[in-house]
Amino acid sequence: MTKKIGRQTAALPSAPAVLSYAAVVGKKEGEGPFRDGFDRISQDSYFGQESWEKAESQMLWQCFTLACGKARLSPSSLDGIFAGDLLNQCVASSFAMKDSGLPYLGVYGACSTIAETLILASMAVDGGFAERVCAVTGSHFCSAERQYRFPLEYGGQRTPSSQWTVTGSGAVVLGTDGGCLRVRLVTPGRIVDAGIRDPNCMGAAMAPAAYDTLRAHFADTGRSPGDYDAIFTGDLGALGHDLLESLFAADGVSLGKGYQDCGVLIYDPSAQNVNAGGSGCGCSASVLCGHILPEMERGRWKRVLFAATGALMSPTSAMQGESIPGICHALVIEREE
Amino acid sequence: MTKKIGRQTAALPSAPAVLSYAAVVGKKEGEGPFRDGFDRISQDSYFGQESWEKAESQMLWQCFTLACGKARLSPSSLDGIFAGDLLNQCVASSFAMKDSGLPYLGVYGACSTIAETLILASMAVDGGFAERVCAVTGSHFCSAERQYRFPLEYGGQRTPSSQWTVTGSGAVVLGTDGGCLRVRLVTPGRIVDAGIRDPNCMGAAMAPAAYDTLRAHFADTGRSPGDYDAIFTGDLGALGHDLLESLFAADGVSLGKGYQDCGVLIYDPSAQNVNAGGSGCGCSASVLCGHILPEMERGRWKRVLFAATGALMSPTSAMQGESIPGICHALVIEREE
Repeated sequence: MTKKIGRQTAALPSAPAVLSYAAVVGKKEGEGPFRDGFDRISQDSYFGQESWEKAESQMLWQCFTLACGKARLSPSSLDGIFAGDLLNQCVASSFAMKDSGLPYLGVYGACSTIAETLILASMAVDGGFAERVCAVTGSHFCSAERQYRFPLEYGGQRTPSSQWTVTGSGAVVLGTDGGCLRVRLVTPGRIVDAGIRDPNCMGAAMAPAAYDTLRAHFADTGRSPGDYDAIFTGDLGALGHDLLESLFAADGVSLGKGYQDCGVLIYDPSAQNVNAGGSGCGCSASVLCGHILPEMERGRWKRVLFAATGALMSPTSAMQGESIPGICHALVIEREE
Repeated sequence: MTKKIGRQTAALPSAPAVLSYAAVVGKKEGEGPFRDGFDRISQDSYFGQESWEKAESQMLWQCFTLACGKARLSPSSLDGIFAGDLLNQCVASSFAMKDSGLPYLGVYGACSTIAETLILASMAVDGGFAERVCAVTGSHFCSAERQYRFPLEYGGQRTPSSQWTVTGSGAVVLGTDGGCLRVRLVTPGRIVDAGIRDPNCMGAAMAPAAYDTLRAHFADTGRSPGDYDAIFTGDLGALGHDLLESLFAADGVSLGKGYQDCGVLIYDPSAQNVNAGGSGCGCSASVLCGHILPEMERGRWKRVLFAATGALMSPTSAMQGESIPGICHALVIEREE
């Protein structure tokens, strides 16, 4: 029996349930608008560890165990973990989860990773391959900054279009039953390369991918933006957010007032110096788990389209003059009455 | 309906079919024992490109399109691609597939990636989320060497336990029906860290993970090594191969004469200077597509347990003194009569 809908979308007839979720973030993120939504805010950027890479792993582990604990689940009762991050060879995730004792499926979707892990985790549950799985991802400003850009001590200037890598993580435990939030549809994205070459302008590189995936989602499902109480893109930032609206406007489509971007939302632009907004795997993941899912549970939105975005480049590809391919993975989460 | 079997294994009741497969390798691999099994052997390590990273992408793209072509499928008739590689941020795969026009799910499992992509692709087909998908991965000696070890020009000495990163790729197209080879069971692996810290001794770091996954597979299914006509581990190399046999021997279990390792098989140790054998995402992928699957089609083996292994470390984690976590993902492929 096929669950395919149109070209890119699949239905999840069993509607995998969000059993629990958690968000753990750093100090700066804890000073932003969602300070009351995050489960834990670390005042120590090292999270008690001796390197930023270990700090990132520690944050992911805390987030994973918190999410399990909130559902009163022992980690050993899960069937597997889908995880990934921005560090080379995804070591933040693999070192975080190496003692979990659970089957581990490593994923790389750059900043779209939380959506990709949720899609794969949802399919694992809906397909009957697992009863409970966790999707978890995160990023750390300090480990990302030195890997992708400059040593922190260098104090490099940032362009107005640049984004600030979020120190944060999000974990979602999905299962066959329980809770009021359900994953209903998934639309994995295609890679879209619009020819953008400036690694300080990720929003412009990713917006065309968000446009491609959302357009496919609307075409596959016969829905329009108005069918959703809220639409969230991953981390397009202020520039990418406006570009995406422009791309749809050229088709005569308005994304409406319900459209927002996690990269725009996570910091307070008037008080926090983040230029075009937040980015990183932890951006959309922590906004999902510290804002979107809690607000859905409270009844603010019933049907949400969540579309995390990623830039599939590396420092090497950028230095070799390559353009920046973008991707956007989307899924629909609904609150059951 | 759950398809779980025991703790880690899942059955695939619809038995996704291998519609086609292809292997594209470099010159050195083309001089090894499987020269007649590979679909294409490039005499040019640049594959006609201007950098090794682009060469790796070009090899992956050739491999993907060859696999589609062998099944007389246009790439656009597929529902998605599961892919990954060893380069930072998995750029070999994302740049290779960026113009495919297909939903793209990036995976990182180090050298176990071909097994992880096949597990996810099998679940996508068996779960009804897709009708036809491709699992593809590869590695390139030159891009890996300079990223993980030394500039090629440096001519660094290699320890006897070190392995040679395979320039090669493998792609498998899975679908709901067609062909005589079927994926029957999947056993995604747990991360196992045995405390090995020597990045020149990957076989020792990965063998405990292979032991963990194979032991789980046998326990979950009630099978023993004798139930398989052949068992292949990913790229443990000569050292890891023997270590795995020793670990099972301590339990009183013999893996039997049907047990072989892709890293041992891919080169001719008497004529090719590769120390402990081959490694890299392309090692088990090209041996699977250039040797195992063709031999299964010819009738040599009916039931094969394929267990690719990976080391989930990075140069940064190694330089920070961390141990090397291993992982092994396994699946069962059977020939239908």
